[in-house]
Amino acid sequence: MSTTSSKLFALGVGIATLNRNGEFLEAFFPEPLLNPQGGDVAALLEIAGYKGGNRTIELSADQLTDLRRLKEPYSSMVDSTKPVVLVVLEEDTPPVTVPEVYLKLHLLSHRLVKPHGTNLTGIFKILPNVAWTNRGAIDLEELPRHILQARLRGETLSVDMVDKFPKMTDYVVPSGVRIADTARVRLGAYLGEGTTIMQEGFVNFNAGTEGPNMIEGRVSSSVWIGTGSDLGGGSSTMGVLSGGNSIPISVGKNCLIGANAGLGIPLGDQCTIESGLYLTAASKVRIVSRDGKVSKTMKALDLAGRSGLLFRRNSQDGAIECLPIKQAIALNEDLHSHN
Amino acid sequence: MSTTSSKLFALGVGIATLNRNGEFLEAFFPEPLLNPQGGDVAALLEIAGYKGGNRTIELSADQLTDLRRLKEPYSSMVDSTKPVVLVVLEEDTPPVTVPEVYLKLHLLSHRLVKPHGTNLTGIFKILPNVAWTNRGAIDLEELPRHILQARLRGETLSVDMVDKFPKMTDYVVPSGVRIADTARVRLGAYLGEGTTIMQEGFVNFNAGTEGPNMIEGRVSSSVWIGTGSDLGGGSSTMGVLSGGNSIPISVGKNCLIGANAGLGIPLGDQCTIESGLYLTAASKVRIVSRDGKVSKTMKALDLAGRSGLLFRRNSQDGAIECLPIKQAIALNEDLHSHN
Amino acid sequence: MSTTSSKLFALGVGIATLNRNGEFLEAFFPEPLLNPQGGDVAALLEIAGYKGGNRTIELSADQLTDLRRLKEPYSSMVDSTKPVVLVVLEEDTPPVTVPEVYLKLHLLSHRLVKPHGTNLTGIFKILPNVAWTNRGAIDLEELPRHILQARLRGETLSVDMVDKFPKMTDYVVPSGVRIADTARVRLGAYLGEGTTIMQEGFVNFNAGTEGPNMIEGRVSSSVWIGTGSDLGGGSSTMGVLSGGNSIPISVGKNCLIGANAGLGIPLGDQCTIESGLYLTAASKVRIVSRDGKVSKTMKALDLAGRSGLLFRRNSQDGAIECLPIKQAIALNEDLHSHN
Repeated sequence: MSTTSSKLFALGVGIATLNRNGEFLEAFFPEPLLNPQGGDVAALLEIAGYKGGNRTIELSADQLTDLRRLKEPYSSMVDSTKPVVLVVLEEDTPPVTVPEVYLKLHLLSHRLVKPHGTNLTGIFKILPNVAWTNRGAIDLEELPRHILQARLRGETLSVDMVDKFPKMTDYVVPSGVRIADTARVRLGAYLGEGTTIMQEGFVNFNAGTEGPNMIEGRVSSSVWIGTGSDLGGGSSTMGVLSGGNSIPISVGKNCLIGANAGLGIPLGDQCTIESGLYLTAASKVRIVSRDGKVSKTMKALDLAGRSGLLFRRNSQDGAIECLPIKQAIALNEDLHSHN
Repeated sequence: MSTTSSKLFALGVGIATLNRNGEFLEAFFPEPLLNPQGGDVAALLEIAGYKGGNRTIELSADQLTDLRRLKEPYSSMVDSTKPVVLVVLEEDTPPVTVPEVYLKLHLLSHRLVKPHGTNLTGIFKILPNVAWTNRGAIDLEELPRHILQARLRGETLSVDMVDKFPKMTDYVVPSGVRIADTARVRLGAYLGEGTTIMQEGFVNFNAGTEGPNMIEGRVSSSVWIGTGSDLGGGSSTMGVLSGGNSIPISVGKNCLIGANAGLGIPLGDQCTIESGLYLTAASKVRIVSRDGKVSKTMKALDLAGRSGLLFRRNSQDGAIECLPIKQAIALNEDLHSHN
Repeated sequence: MSTTSSKLFALGVGIATLNRNGEFLEAFFPEPLLNPQGGDVAALLEIAGYKGGNRTIELSADQLTDLRRLKEPYSSMVDSTKPVVLVVLEEDTPPVTVPEVYLKLHLLSHRLVKPHGTNLTGIFKILPNVAWTNRGAIDLEELPRHILQARLRGETLSVDMVDKFPKMTDYVVPSGVRIADTARVRLGAYLGEGTTIMQEGFVNFNAGTEGPNMIEGRVSSSVWIGTGSDLGGGSSTMGVLSGGNSIPISVGKNCLIGANAGLGIPLGDQCTIESGLYLTAASKVRIVSRDGKVSKTMKALDLAGRSGLLFRRNSQDGAIECLPIKQAIALNEDLHSHN
């Protein structure tokens, strides 16, 4: 068995929610594993009768009883009032079951893989749309009955999200982060140590921050924010899922994207975008030297990835300008002391 | 009775919350009806002793028992631990009771009427401001006692909204929609089939989307978004309730309002507003032809409702320009597969 | 005792949450007092054996029993299932305990002191980062166990915020306010009577509104908004905590900050910033007279605090302009009738 397990991509034992038709709505993995190895892994595979491949195995009562001899969290799974699934991924191929997708989203949020570090092809077609309520995940077909029953009892069923993705924090809160409004960070987001997401911040799945970072803007799907960079309030990064953009956006280290600004190209390190300026890939940019001379005009896309640049809109003639930066930003230490 | 009921505008049987003074805070209608007809409607009117006009009738225990012989959801109302009200609207005149307003907001969110399709005159004066908590609607005068009592028990009363409007999803989730953060869609919003509201999206009451749509911006009160249009992250549409605007804004089909952009005029079909550009009604716009020639300058308001236009701010001279559009957007199919 | 109590800065009896190590996570004060005086205050100090200074005193069972003879809310504290603390602040010096910080944040949200009206130096170092859940405040070290235990029971622990600051409304809802999404107003915010915070609004601690106000934008830390002013959807005010700004921003009376606009200087009364314009302190502004003549160019910072100005970006040449204002805004009365 050790030979088999040493070749695995990922493994997790999860507690799943099913609808009345027995279809998976979601799965929670307290301890997802990347490249799983060791005695407990071998034991899990043996208990589940794993023979290879990518498998989602719903554990029987007998199999659950066998988990008792393993360490936590496996040993307590026998007490679960909901179905328990073992997901084993031999290879990082496109997922085909709901628990497989959830395991991969857990890998991201547990910082076991970085954005783009696991194959998520086709997940919108696999994930069901779910009502996330104060009573857990509920199938949308079954929701009206639940709402009515709660009202008849004099209660309100609070339906907090209707989405294919739950909020990350109901599954895992990685160390050293603050998230002021958790509805704005999806499971599958990667938040590096020392990341603060303010009320106006947002992080999609398969996107994230290296940490430490102050995020008051939107980290769209596929976007990556480097160490020490600050996304100002309401700032925008173009994603690849909608709106026509196809360039994956990234921000280097120690950059400042000003409040209400926007970014349509990848940035290098120590770059600043002035508050309120939306820099699209097609913007024509006036290049200004340190001594204030204009040298030429370039397309913003041709400045992609370069470091030490300040972008602003000239307040007197409305032209977008690019200057060498004088001083990089420093994050406020106080805001990142996560005791 | 069938003659009477055939002339009605709307009808609903709801479960209501009252404060300690017996005043209505809200009402939930599991099955609101527009132009109600049929045997159960006639029976309801007879049980309630309805004689015409717009009426809000709190049903007595005896009347509730009589509902048993009707179909669901009426038959289960007898089990309600809260007061049950019958609201009958003969005419679509300005509402005068809280349940009447709630019935009309339900009509919108159930897609039975479109925005502006029912008379909502004066509702801000009728609707009480309410604390929406994890224990349901609570009168604001009574709230401090509830908060203290919960704390003494070692619990926290979560006060999620303090507003005249609750979130839509606690009342109804229309088919084929996703809403990433339900606090941002008010009861009375109209969301067409295939609408996705991302975390940064927002839809006010008496406003909505035709569907399918990707909404990552704000659909202000009275605003209507046509089929296939995309509101980018943080984009703004001017409402008529505050800020001095009095033109009802609409967006036609297959438009793209870029991220952090804004709209102060109605748009036709296949229009695009560049990310970061706020097009107000008073903006003066340089008209540029397909071959790049400048023809004239027009006020944005005079371009209201026209199709096939691209609005951008020239990145070299700061002028707002309007060009014929080359290519309309296409929504990402994956994001709209709501299985 | 009356001599002592007459000199006190503040006092509160609170219900506290502790982690498993006995460290404070938060404290709720139903009735915080500024310059506390009177018989019950003297009795409280005597029961607690207060001898002077700034003190956080956890009350013993015997002391709690002694509270029975006092008025509400003190008399019911004996029933608390959680620890009860008395915080006495003789002087308004930097806080040193978690309950002290919470008492000061309560003073702000109860409108007993205005922003900057109490010393909050160093609070980021004192406040622990906490998971705010549907089961109250939970220590982050203890959170994974709680999440797993809830899942095993078939429930979901909803982790709504991971932050040093809770949402204000779980502690106090001041009179005459509406808050459409309470996750966006931190404890320590000051909301004046007649303030409406829409879904897109935000108010940080130690910042606030004089009231009445319509707030659909972000009131950053240290920012103050005067009577009758309107912050448009997605508008930004520069804070002093991050992003390099060090000028405290304020907005005078009857100002309109347009949707998606931004503000980097203090404004006087009756000023308007056009939707979509970000006015930074370094912006160079063209001064235009009432008859349309250009007089000169000034730095925006040099216009700080002046009244009656309209700021816009010329839509034809891209220059930021400042004009004398023609007409000040009026808030929509309907939106501020908080019956």
